[in-house]
Amino acid sequence: MSTWIMIAPLVGLIGLLVAYLIFISLKKQPDGNDKMREIAKSIYDGAMAFLFREYKVLSIFVLIIFVLMLFAPSLGWKTALAFLVGALCSIIAGFFGMNAATKANVRTSEAARSGGLAKALFISYNGGAVMGLAVASLGLFGVGVLYVFFGSIENIQYINGFAMGASSIALFARVGGGIYTKAADVGSDLVGKVEAGIPEDDPRNPGVIADNVGDNVGDIAGMGADIFESYVGSIIATMAIAATASATLIASIGVVGGSEAVSRSTLMFIPILLAILGLVASIIGVLSMRVLKNSDPAKALRYSTFIGAGLFLILTYFVTTNIFAVSYKIFIAVLVGTLAGTFIGLITEYYTSADFKPTRTVAEYAVEGEAFVVTKGDAVGSKSVMLPVAIIGISLVISASIGGTYGIAIAALGMLSFVGTTVSIDAFGPIADNAGGLAESCHLDPEVRKITDKLDSVGNTTAAVGKGFAIGSAAFATVSLICAYVSNLKVVPTIDSFMVIAGCIIGGALIEFFCALLTDNTIASAKELADVGDRQLSDPAILAGEKDPDYNELVALATKTALKRMLLPSVIALAVPFVGGAILGPEFVIGILLGATVVAIPRAIFMGNSGGSFDNAKKYIESGAIEGHGKGSAAHKAAVTGDTIGDTRKDVVGVALDIFIKMMSTVATTLFVVITALYSLI
Amino acid sequence: MSTWIMIAPLVGLIGLLVAYLIFISLKKQPDGNDKMREIAKSIYDGAMAFLFREYKVLSIFVLIIFVLMLFAPSLGWKTALAFLVGALCSIIAGFFGMNAATKANVRTSEAARSGGLAKALFISYNGGAVMGLAVASLGLFGVGVLYVFFGSIENIQYINGFAMGASSIALFARVGGGIYTKAADVGSDLVGKVEAGIPEDDPRNPGVIADNVGDNVGDIAGMGADIFESYVGSIIATMAIAATASATLIASIGVVGGSEAVSRSTLMFIPILLAILGLVASIIGVLSMRVLKNSDPAKALRYSTFIGAGLFLILTYFVTTNIFAVSYKIFIAVLVGTLAGTFIGLITEYYTSADFKPTRTVAEYAVEGEAFVVTKGDAVGSKSVMLPVAIIGISLVISASIGGTYGIAIAALGMLSFVGTTVSIDAFGPIADNAGGLAESCHLDPEVRKITDKLDSVGNTTAAVGKGFAIGSAAFATVSLICAYVSNLKVVPTIDSFMVIAGCIIGGALIEFFCALLTDNTIASAKELADVGDRQLSDPAILAGEKDPDYNELVALATKTALKRMLLPSVIALAVPFVGGAILGPEFVIGILLGATVVAIPRAIFMGNSGGSFDNAKKYIESGAIEGHGKGSAAHKAAVTGDTIGDTRKDVVGVALDIFIKMMSTVATTLFVVITALYSLI
Repeated sequence: MSTWIMIAPLVGLIGLLVAYLIFISLKKQPDGNDKMREIAKSIYDGAMAFLFREYKVLSIFVLIIFVLMLFAPSLGWKTALAFLVGALCSIIAGFFGMNAATKANVRTSEAARSGGLAKALFISYNGGAVMGLAVASLGLFGVGVLYVFFGSIENIQYINGFAMGASSIALFARVGGGIYTKAADVGSDLVGKVEAGIPEDDPRNPGVIADNVGDNVGDIAGMGADIFESYVGSIIATMAIAATASATLIASIGVVGGSEAVSRSTLMFIPILLAILGLVASIIGVLSMRVLKNSDPAKALRYSTFIGAGLFLILTYFVTTNIFAVSYKIFIAVLVGTLAGTFIGLITEYYTSADFKPTRTVAEYAVEGEAFVVTKGDAVGSKSVMLPVAIIGISLVISASIGGTYGIAIAALGMLSFVGTTVSIDAFGPIADNAGGLAESCHLDPEVRKITDKLDSVGNTTAAVGKGFAIGSAAFATVSLICAYVSNLKVVPTIDSFMVIAGCIIGGALIEFFCALLTDNTIASAKELADVGDRQLSDPAILAGEKDPDYNELVALATKTALKRMLLPSVIALAVPFVGGAILGPEFVIGILLGATVVAIPRAIFMGNSGGSFDNAKKYIESGAIEGHGKGSAAHKAAVTGDTIGDTRKDVVGVALDIFIKMMSTVATTLFVVITALYSLI
Repeated sequence: MSTWIMIAPLVGLIGLLVAYLIFISLKKQPDGNDKMREIAKSIYDGAMAFLFREYKVLSIFVLIIFVLMLFAPSLGWKTALAFLVGALCSIIAGFFGMNAATKANVRTSEAARSGGLAKALFISYNGGAVMGLAVASLGLFGVGVLYVFFGSIENIQYINGFAMGASSIALFARVGGGIYTKAADVGSDLVGKVEAGIPEDDPRNPGVIADNVGDNVGDIAGMGADIFESYVGSIIATMAIAATASATLIASIGVVGGSEAVSRSTLMFIPILLAILGLVASIIGVLSMRVLKNSDPAKALRYSTFIGAGLFLILTYFVTTNIFAVSYKIFIAVLVGTLAGTFIGLITEYYTSADFKPTRTVAEYAVEGEAFVVTKGDAVGSKSVMLPVAIIGISLVISASIGGTYGIAIAALGMLSFVGTTVSIDAFGPIADNAGGLAESCHLDPEVRKITDKLDSVGNTTAAVGKGFAIGSAAFATVSLICAYVSNLKVVPTIDSFMVIAGCIIGGALIEFFCALLTDNTIASAKELADVGDRQLSDPAILAGEKDPDYNELVALATKTALKRMLLPSVIALAVPFVGGAILGPEFVIGILLGATVVAIPRAIFMGNSGGSFDNAKKYIESGAIEGHGKGSAAHKAAVTGDTIGDTRKDVVGVALDIFIKMMSTVATTLFVVITALYSLI
């Protein structure tokens, strides 16, 4: 197995190399005319400026925690070092992916203009693939290197620091990026469409660059950091669980006929093995686009995912049962995770796509006015929760019956190991969206916009499956983290412990409070941006198109307001388990974690799906599908209201909830010894 | 103590007698001119027709369950009988209270016309007091009589049937009444204001009677049945807990210096004692309005509650520590409950009243349009959750540290024992609202409407405190029911049981699903009503006011649609713990109950407070408080959208969630033996 341990960082490096080669070939593509280059450069500069400033804030934060960890009792330099490496890997992946995305957008517009659909698909997909492979490769590389040094039962706990580093970056990147993107989107909508009657991507709109920057910092950098932390968090949680698993469990799922020690160290390595196999499958899935690009885009994206997922499953079956000789049950748990993620994704698509009844009904209720469309969208969002959660519940029970907490953690990895492919598609959507914005801002032929719209819409649908994996894996990861936390306790509390119940109720309310903070912060920022945009548009020369608006003023304001407003929610997530545990003890923390999870899962699904349904109901009306109520009608206006309400829900609140619960569980697990020590002092 | 046991039904009868005398004197008041009598009769007839049809449906349901219980293993005739009595008492209280309310509305209009504010206050308050005293008296009488027969440790379990009977009626009454009232309200708003430009209470609006009927069946009958079930549910849960409490606990809170047996039977009786004292205090609180009516209405209502609550606390302290000689800790638990309820109420007022910043900000955001006001209202609703839940969490821990589950149950009674006064005020609001509607429909002097508006607004504010008691007591009652359920198990599961965790997650999602069903059903019904109203208004004679619309068509339709649509949500609440437990076992049921509670508490507060805030933000704008954006402005239109969205939230969904979780816990506790027997078979 010692050979295999060295393979992990190696495969990680190979993945990075592939990503770099894709990036190089992407950069060589033509990037359009001068106007296109100019706007693309503004977007690139704005996005990079935001990332730099965001990471500057985070560096201070990371350094403080690093120093605190160095001196904290029973943590020491190993955890602190792992924490630093985790944060760094996440930051590097974000920079690299973002760089590629902001090169790919304008090249996609140009490809759509001069090369057609297949070419545009290939470029935008490859733009996303850089982020996808960077996330998977840096995750595997970072964890792999740490495993070489800390991969023993005594040292494995220190790797938790890596997960906490990744979590910290993810939380800030999601919250800051989310507030930026939706404040810019809603703010510039308010300026452009509502008050001056000019379209969203019109170059006269002072918010147009900020809006495009937002797509990058929120939907690409924020998303990448999010999945990075899920991915490494699940790998690390699985290792930690294997290190402390009972001998009975080890015997039942470990190496067939092997000793307990051999089985245990194999099971500790299995999560890294899955990551290796997932990355190999993902590289092949990503490269398959060279062949697939000429088919229908929806099919091409779907097949590339299927190739990634399918290969991963096949490799997993053979390598685990043959080469590592562990029980076939490991494969079953992986399969349960993959299937659960896929089904949740398909259900998401059912509720949010205008091809099906729920979203069509939302569009039809728009005819009755704003109150009806919003109420109906709320109902669709709430209704869409039941089936995914039932799937999560059932697969939890199945994977737990296979291998207890270890089984659950492995199922989470079943959803996350081929992130290389899913993140590629998640990042592809915003690139196509940006390319469309560029086409409009630069007054390219409407045919170009049609191509990018087609790609954008395909990306949205395919990304629904990715969302299924994100929410499903968050649920599994959090449950396994909670169980890992519980296993630290000498006496496991029973279900009727009042401290646990009180913690549960308060943890649930904390999620509502967190939703409130994010929502409040986003619309307050949107209002600030809209006010500045309105002031600019009051200059008749700008409104007439004779003078360029000061785009940078809004880009700078969006950056400032997002960074300012990301702090409080993020600090709460970090502080609550720590402070709550130090004052009220470890049972209270279990309650907080469980209650937060139980409330966050349905809320996250609600936020994502009601927002997605509003978005597509609006597009459905715009397509003219409801007779007598097309674009510009009262029904359309009502649907736009729904869409604007949904924007904050799906792209700020919903996506942050996953990280919020994982972050709290990671902090609780990593800092368990510190929390317990403080509690005994107080 | 045997004397005291006979006192319970007696005090119940005295309370009923007082209610009856108030009713008689109310009926003697003048009921206005012919037009007023005619409309009032339509409302009365509509409300009674709905109640009759609703109870007809429920009778069938109650009889089926009764027969099933008769033949169910280990339940037998005693539980079945108690179930029947519980359902009957709730139905009688509903009929009696509703009768008084539909007499009081027109008499309040008349009093406002001919007698002024004090007289109108007195009549509308007394109209509500009949419901308040009926609920408290019939609850005490029913439980008291059953206690005479089943008040021993061996038999006490059978009284659970009474709680289940009350729960069943409450659930259907809340869901059916809620759908009726909001479908009629939203539907007739849509017809009247939005499409024909005529005010809500205009007699040309075909939905005007249905709307007024809705206030009665939802906000009075539904509310009464709801609080009735909380009240008796808490009394009965407390008894059951005392019967099985540990000897150590009994010794620490029981009769000072008494034997275990004496202490235990005293503790079993304490909940009834609290109900007796609460009813006595409530009667005095209600009668104090004879003196208070001449002061400012807000003060009068507040003082009558303070008299009820204060007297109850004083009586409790002396009677428990002196006459019954139990530990003073019982009083402390009662006090914790009363204080928690009061604080939650005050926080509710802070978030929902236009006197404070949150709701004013919602109104200010209306200037930016629909999407902003809705998003801001959502944020206020979510933010308002944290403090009440923190209070619930803290008081749970305090009361549990005083007396374990028994302490929690006693704290719930601290919020519920003086329901006589709180329900009086809850029912007073809709009566004043109805009186205002009557004044407008009958074209009375605008001064009359001003008086009823004043009463209505005072009622809304004071009712906020009542809502605090409702949600707080639901949380406490459910937690104590869950603990009572857990105490049935031989092995109490630990917090890391996967069945419990999976159940928790699914139970939480069930709440979202339930919200979706209720929302969907309400707006579907509203749309049906609006369509019929529009058809009627297409007759120019009706629009011109030359011909009366066919009010009865809408009253009948609202009744039919509400009854049809109440069934599925109600049956789910009843079936889930039963079916889930029979298939997946008792640990899964614990998870379901806990998860549902953890999600339902914040959701119920969110629904109530976001709805309340929207409502008052609209009124704030109507009052002209935001310069340049008064009644009829775009900002007002946006605020009306918020209000309509909030209507379904606060008056259908939010109020039903409390019962939903209590119903599920009651079913699980009452049918524990049956569920367990079925599980072992499957």
